[in-house]
Amino acid sequence: MSQALSEFDLIARYFDVPALKGSEDNPFISLSIGDDCALLQPTPHHQLAVSVDTLVSGIHFPVNVPPKLLAWRSLAVSVSDLAAMGATPRGFTLALTLPEANSDWLASFASGLAEAAQHYGVVLFGGDTTKGPLAISVQVFGEVPSGLALRRDGANIGDAVFVSGELGGAHVALDYLADEANQDPLVDQLLQAYYKPDAAIALGQALRGVASAAVDISDGLLADLGHIASRSGLSITVHSHLIPVHPAVSALCNKDRALAAATKGGDDYQLAFCVPESKIPDLLALPFNLTRIGTCKSGAGVLLDDQHILSGGFQHFEV
Amino acid sequence: MSQALSEFDLIARYFDVPALKGSEDNPFISLSIGDDCALLQPTPHHQLAVSVDTLVSGIHFPVNVPPKLLAWRSLAVSVSDLAAMGATPRGFTLALTLPEANSDWLASFASGLAEAAQHYGVVLFGGDTTKGPLAISVQVFGEVPSGLALRRDGANIGDAVFVSGELGGAHVALDYLADEANQDPLVDQLLQAYYKPDAAIALGQALRGVASAAVDISDGLLADLGHIASRSGLSITVHSHLIPVHPAVSALCNKDRALAAATKGGDDYQLAFCVPESKIPDLLALPFNLTRIGTCKSGAGVLLDDQHILSGGFQHFEV
Repeated sequence: MSQALSEFDLIARYFDVPALKGSEDNPFISLSIGDDCALLQPTPHHQLAVSVDTLVSGIHFPVNVPPKLLAWRSLAVSVSDLAAMGATPRGFTLALTLPEANSDWLASFASGLAEAAQHYGVVLFGGDTTKGPLAISVQVFGEVPSGLALRRDGANIGDAVFVSGELGGAHVALDYLADEANQDPLVDQLLQAYYKPDAAIALGQALRGVASAAVDISDGLLADLGHIASRSGLSITVHSHLIPVHPAVSALCNKDRALAAATKGGDDYQLAFCVPESKIPDLLALPFNLTRIGTCKSGAGVLLDDQHILSGGFQHFEV
Repeated sequence: MSQALSEFDLIARYFDVPALKGSEDNPFISLSIGDDCALLQPTPHHQLAVSVDTLVSGIHFPVNVPPKLLAWRSLAVSVSDLAAMGATPRGFTLALTLPEANSDWLASFASGLAEAAQHYGVVLFGGDTTKGPLAISVQVFGEVPSGLALRRDGANIGDAVFVSGELGGAHVALDYLADEANQDPLVDQLLQAYYKPDAAIALGQALRGVASAAVDISDGLLADLGHIASRSGLSITVHSHLIPVHPAVSALCNKDRALAAATKGGDDYQLAFCVPESKIPDLLALPFNLTRIGTCKSGAGVLLDDQHILSGGFQHFEV
């Protein structure tokens, strides 16, 4: 810790609270906020899945975003990485950089964070508050039985490629974020998709032992399938007419724009995954909205219909 | 992950490298950079110690700090939190926010980070790079045998209070950070204390089963002892004439300034800890530079000589 500003001690009051810290007898958290480190007690025979995402004001969200929605989104996008691994969410830390300690802002942010934390079954067990330009860095922790995590590198030639939910909504929402007066219920659906992406935790866990590889759609469907193709050493062909476009996107955009939003727009936080043909009956028995959109083939990169969209070798620094 | 900027894919080349990721057969890291999450395989019968610290440009370090030293310091201040818990460092994630992808800056930062990582025996297993005002958030992971972590809440009335090393150097260094032309070897010692604080990892591990409570000195000796006093429900009396002041501080400052730097200046990253009288012989047999500076008593807060410096109840949002 660097030197404390007394106003930042005040911030502790919004975060060091039962609504965020959860029950004291949580078996995963041996020691929570208030010491040099948190102490976690991992479940035997499990691996720990860890991911960090930073959202910066003016880059990843509009400057005047409602803090409650910002908190929800900040946690959801990180939890989505746990979903993509098939992990069970356990907890998170928050590194919050703020230009000033504004009580109204903090109360709203903390209430949205508590709501999202309860939704995803995670508790806040540590963090750091610092003075500076507004940025939110959330690190999530989940657990998965050893060896059962869904990874990007397990796809095989011949596997079918599926996607969950409907795509493009969060991307088209970007056009409406500044338009506070909009009352269109279709636009409201898009804003919901943007601010409260529903990380596919239950689906990810159900895919353990079924999917050969998985990724969450944060950078856009084709770019994220590119991660699987690259890490698994194969190509993926996607058929545009099979892609499940968000109905509000289809209603508000022309066909080209709708397809572009669904294939190249990011922020959907649905899962894209590969399944061996032999496991497709198991998959289709699951109670989720899933669509088969393509196939894993030899070669490299991602093809939309017959067009090569991404070459191989794309690699992004993330986790 | 938010939408990728192609220049930020470039950044991966500086961090997704063996010098930082370490050996592929590291038993703690099952899956490193390149998937939605990293996967860790915790050691049985151990707890995981986790801490995050954010350093913001212009707030926690001067805008023009050499990137190599900034990287070293960013990692050391986080590793110091592991030292304070008696944990063995295992790995870390890096959330790096940068205004631009400057190759020279990145190469220097990455080389300093690799040097510090090797010094502390940690590997980089994940992170996030985003565009925005310069800020560095490091989350460290360590392990400690279950039940043996040094905590802030274990001190008892009658325990002796010790501190490691010499204090005040990093704080007085703040006066010289902008003075690039300074050739004084004393100043050089101070800058070393500031940029390359030597996190007391070996000491922390040696204190398992010996110390009753411990904290690292980041906010200043008295403020950090206040954390132990508050969490342990007692008061701590410190004697000013016993405090080990950094010799360069004694040489460069008058007596009052030197004492203030050593007691209230932050950034030293030495350990302060409490030891029952019965364990003092064990402690003094350890090969570390340690000084007894005070005693735990009933009451609340921290006293320097007879003066009440801190009242009880001080609580900072951190981990």
